[in-house]
Amino acid sequence: MIELTLIGIGTGNPNHVTAEAAKAMNAADLILIPLKGEDKADLAGLRMEICRACVTGPATRIEGFDLPVRDPATPDYLQRVNDWHDAIAAVWQARIAAHLAAGGGPKVAFLVWGDPSLYDSTLRIAGRLERHMPLRLRVVPGITAIQALCAAHAIPLNELAAPVVITTGRQLREGGWPAGADTVVVMLDQGGGFAALDPEGIDIWWGAYVGMGEQILIAGPLAEVAADIVETRASARAGHGWIMDIYLMRRARPQAAPCGTA
Amino acid sequence: MIELTLIGIGTGNPNHVTAEAAKAMNAADLILIPLKGEDKADLAGLRMEICRACVTGPATRIEGFDLPVRDPATPDYLQRVNDWHDAIAAVWQARIAAHLAAGGGPKVAFLVWGDPSLYDSTLRIAGRLERHMPLRLRVVPGITAIQALCAAHAIPLNELAAPVVITTGRQLREGGWPAGADTVVVMLDQGGGFAALDPEGIDIWWGAYVGMGEQILIAGPLAEVAADIVETRASARAGHGWIMDIYLMRRARPQAAPCGTA
Repeated sequence: MIELTLIGIGTGNPNHVTAEAAKAMNAADLILIPLKGEDKADLAGLRMEICRACVTGPATRIEGFDLPVRDPATPDYLQRVNDWHDAIAAVWQARIAAHLAAGGGPKVAFLVWGDPSLYDSTLRIAGRLERHMPLRLRVVPGITAIQALCAAHAIPLNELAAPVVITTGRQLREGGWPAGADTVVVMLDQGGGFAALDPEGIDIWWGAYVGMGEQILIAGPLAEVAADIVETRASARAGHGWIMDIYLMRRARPQAAPCGTA
Repeated sequence: MIELTLIGIGTGNPNHVTAEAAKAMNAADLILIPLKGEDKADLAGLRMEICRACVTGPATRIEGFDLPVRDPATPDYLQRVNDWHDAIAAVWQARIAAHLAAGGGPKVAFLVWGDPSLYDSTLRIAGRLERHMPLRLRVVPGITAIQALCAAHAIPLNELAAPVVITTGRQLREGGWPAGADTVVVMLDQGGGFAALDPEGIDIWWGAYVGMGEQILIAGPLAEVAADIVETRASARAGHGWIMDIYLMRRARPQAAPCGTA
């Protein structure tokens, strides 16, 4: 029985690591770290660095592995992602089997950027692995990019007692401003998804590399800062070779209805 | 100039504390901890305990203060909360002024359950304080109840590339299932807000005291477990004298439209 632990490590700031995450890393017999395939060389290095900084004992093996890449020949987005997750699960299985065959212990861990629950595939890949080897799954939460963004701007996520929608750049492009909330957080945007909106009355708080040394923040009325964000994002991406960014938008509430009529 | 730091400390598990949060506590000249008014005696004690466990140097003063209570005579919910925040800001101001008058340093910190961005009033109260004393505000993110819930159940927050709504029990009661998402997280529910929904096709993952030793988890089809959750919540609340709970619901997606037509 494999004890598989998915450990959220925050958004790249080594100080985001919780005591629980550090303990889980040290309790692991094997920590597997994807080294390639993310097309984000310094991210892979950073994850390795955070891992090495936290793991204090010699009992934990830290091994890199090559992450498969998505097949661009698969036209359907969800199918492409599902195939990719299958391929990653097969690599995990092979690496864990080799580790066990060499006499390694059953505690295997993966480090996850942010938190394993939020727009991350690791839990889904673990579900695939479970079909091939019995495992006990444990999740250690970590600081998400949403929280790192709000902390960096020192803003609340929600307005008082009001709802929030978390969505993707793709959804925003296809569906416009989501129904049901005046606050929207957008993740996984390939850049400028907010251009699909009429900017009137919308404020935006944008951040790239949030929580990291390279952090860039821009905030203001969308109409005024949209172009700056698009340009800053493009040049940061070109400079680093990769970017992780996220933004929160709030629109002015319609005039409140008299109490009790909402 | 006051340097005010709002420190997210997670959901009551001392292991949720990040390295950044522990450093921020130790860097503070004064940490103010609400002792009464929450009607949650062991929570106040737990916050003090987490604080004392993290603060290793003698330079940091830890002081309790009595939190004002909401005035039940104010009928409007938002007005009642706004008045309450004004009253809390006045207490903060008085305590900080007394600390400075006694020669205390300018670094003041508050510990926030979960994360300061999510359904928490501390940032709003800090905004009020800023009108009365110049301050530089810093936020340290912490593990939220949403993440602790997902981690405890080992489930993702979102479905693959799909949006999520975070809302309150009040909103759910008044508006039913929110538009625009098949995953909903409900916070600040006084109990059983899901009774407002037709349970058909809805799964629920509920947790109380998530991340703490007292953690209770129930999951399953809403139709099957709703009564159990209501009963378990009531008896846990009676036993502890307080409860913090949260739940995630997912409804079966309608049949997917052919690709490109969504």
